[in-house]
Amino acid sequence: MEQDKVFMQKALQLAGLAQGRTSPNPLVGAVVVKDGLIIGEGYHHRAGSPHAEVLAIREAGEKARGAVLYVSLEPCNHHGRTPPCTEAIIAAGIERVYIGVLDPNPRVAGSGVNRLREAGIDVQLGCMEQEAQALNECYFKFITWGMPFVALKTATTLDGKIATYTGDSQWITNEKSREYVHGLRDIFDAIMVGSGTVLKDNPRLNTRLAKEDVHHPVRLIVDGRLEIPCDCNIMETTEQQTTIIYSSFRADSVKKRKLEDSGAEVVLIGQDPDKLPLEDILRDAAARGLMSVLIEAGGQINAYVLENHLVDKVYWFIAPRICGGDRALSAVGGQGIALMNQTIDLHNVEVHSFDGDLMIEGYIKPNICE
Amino acid sequence: MEQDKVFMQKALQLAGLAQGRTSPNPLVGAVVVKDGLIIGEGYHHRAGSPHAEVLAIREAGEKARGAVLYVSLEPCNHHGRTPPCTEAIIAAGIERVYIGVLDPNPRVAGSGVNRLREAGIDVQLGCMEQEAQALNECYFKFITWGMPFVALKTATTLDGKIATYTGDSQWITNEKSREYVHGLRDIFDAIMVGSGTVLKDNPRLNTRLAKEDVHHPVRLIVDGRLEIPCDCNIMETTEQQTTIIYSSFRADSVKKRKLEDSGAEVVLIGQDPDKLPLEDILRDAAARGLMSVLIEAGGQINAYVLENHLVDKVYWFIAPRICGGDRALSAVGGQGIALMNQTIDLHNVEVHSFDGDLMIEGYIKPNICE
Repeated sequence: MEQDKVFMQKALQLAGLAQGRTSPNPLVGAVVVKDGLIIGEGYHHRAGSPHAEVLAIREAGEKARGAVLYVSLEPCNHHGRTPPCTEAIIAAGIERVYIGVLDPNPRVAGSGVNRLREAGIDVQLGCMEQEAQALNECYFKFITWGMPFVALKTATTLDGKIATYTGDSQWITNEKSREYVHGLRDIFDAIMVGSGTVLKDNPRLNTRLAKEDVHHPVRLIVDGRLEIPCDCNIMETTEQQTTIIYSSFRADSVKKRKLEDSGAEVVLIGQDPDKLPLEDILRDAAARGLMSVLIEAGGQINAYVLENHLVDKVYWFIAPRICGGDRALSAVGGQGIALMNQTIDLHNVEVHSFDGDLMIEGYIKPNICE
Repeated sequence: MEQDKVFMQKALQLAGLAQGRTSPNPLVGAVVVKDGLIIGEGYHHRAGSPHAEVLAIREAGEKARGAVLYVSLEPCNHHGRTPPCTEAIIAAGIERVYIGVLDPNPRVAGSGVNRLREAGIDVQLGCMEQEAQALNECYFKFITWGMPFVALKTATTLDGKIATYTGDSQWITNEKSREYVHGLRDIFDAIMVGSGTVLKDNPRLNTRLAKEDVHHPVRLIVDGRLEIPCDCNIMETTEQQTTIIYSSFRADSVKKRKLEDSGAEVVLIGQDPDKLPLEDILRDAAARGLMSVLIEAGGQINAYVLENHLVDKVYWFIAPRICGGDRALSAVGGQGIALMNQTIDLHNVEVHSFDGDLMIEGYIKPNICE
């Protein structure tokens, strides 16, 4: 690997440390290099805290003068909660800046590069661009589309079942697979389930990992009839974890008040309690600065988001066991696709193995008609 | 690897060359070794043709005197279509015999070893026993249980569907996966489908591989009402490929005659045309010397054979695509398993990848209650 890529790789790695913690800001990492040595490094920890470039330059101190900066994303050029990074870079006397990828945010979008160049700094674009973009896939989706990056997670038997014909569903996958899911919750801004899942499994939807500084996703509950009880695990932990319940305009106002009194926010968003407009719910989540949503729902929500092209990525766990049953629940319900050559294909597929379970990870190509 | 294992490995490899061609005999390979060199080798090509040991000894000629024989399965000690191998070994002056695994056939079952030892030959048992047994898994099942070794092959989308809600099913998997299936047909004695598959897909169920000496499996058609037409691809190729149609006692005798006139054998075997006793059909297949059956059927047959513990092995292809649909067909129908902790688990699972498709291969543990 060329020297430049080694340093950019380090910047990317630093950036990744804050996954799930920076929303609505992007992940950014930076290193300051002089005479082939890293003399300063930093990453953006969370919205409102200093930017990566500033931290790296601060660590480098006076030595930053004449040094090279590697930053995974284009430095900002505007006053947000912190001053523009471009000014800090110029002030520090940085001679050259390698940038992973341009920031698509219209408030940046090349203006950072322009400002640096105006100041006589040599700016090199596109160093490990693909990796830099992939790292911030949630941010890119969010900024470009005004929608969160949506991942669908499901766990099925070999024959695609998420529950037996009696409704039994625990557990399909093994502990190691389930631990991986908690790792996902740790890096997603929000998690979405339907009321059916709440009523059946009474989940907490928190992140259970043996580490400090765990991130618990905001809980988005799709509940067209406000059926979830006030004494379920979710409602009893609203103080620890933000909980938003989406329902229909027909929801019972007394129940709505009760849930609100228990600490949840209730948003009325559609007419049909059986088919809330999930695209509007996701848009609402984005408006709240939630850049990524992990859907851990049942067959009906899964079908809706897939059929309506709302999903970007799939995490599909498969346990090597067979359930069978014409009436056993499949992972994706709804009407389904009519022809086999029109199914929803996964791309850039990776297969992982967790103690015998498989996990198929892949992307769904954006529908160009959208 | 020890020297012994190297030679036994060679014997196993030779044996495997005749996969799917020796029924109702086992696969057997043999090498004769003298002064560390192989001086003769052979394998059993097909029932009625010379046994592996005899071919290997014949190739070694006079040099066999004082040599060592490696044979993957216990030599026979009875007059079948060929004279006992034990006598050939003794007559050739072989000094020592390494045997992979004892032959469970009651006509052999240790008597081969005893005869050799009586003749003063040093017999070493269990050299690569596990591999030797695995190679002949079909034969062992057949000899021990009087039933064929049964493999279930299916191909599904990620969500376990074998057809969309409109019934469309072609194609789920890619060319490379389908080619692998033809490789399976090449080594299975028989292939089983239901009439539904015949009516819908009009398959030929032959083996299409770019090689010489292709083996076409015997076709076992489960057709409780004798619904398959006389002009389907299967019926039009009965001269090239043996075809047995299993039906109920209620089958129409005129249609039965027509199918027989077209070259199929029709066997009436159950009362309920919707639920023929597949265990009896498999037993009938075994009685015909068919040691292995590959089931390439739909959800109802799959459910029946799984629920009734008739399946030994599963070849499960998964294409990384999502079909969806509450009414789309799943790979395993029927009632299904009631509780998730009672599902049918696969063991010794191996995962293969064919141009992006996955294939999960695993064994189903025999039900000890049986």
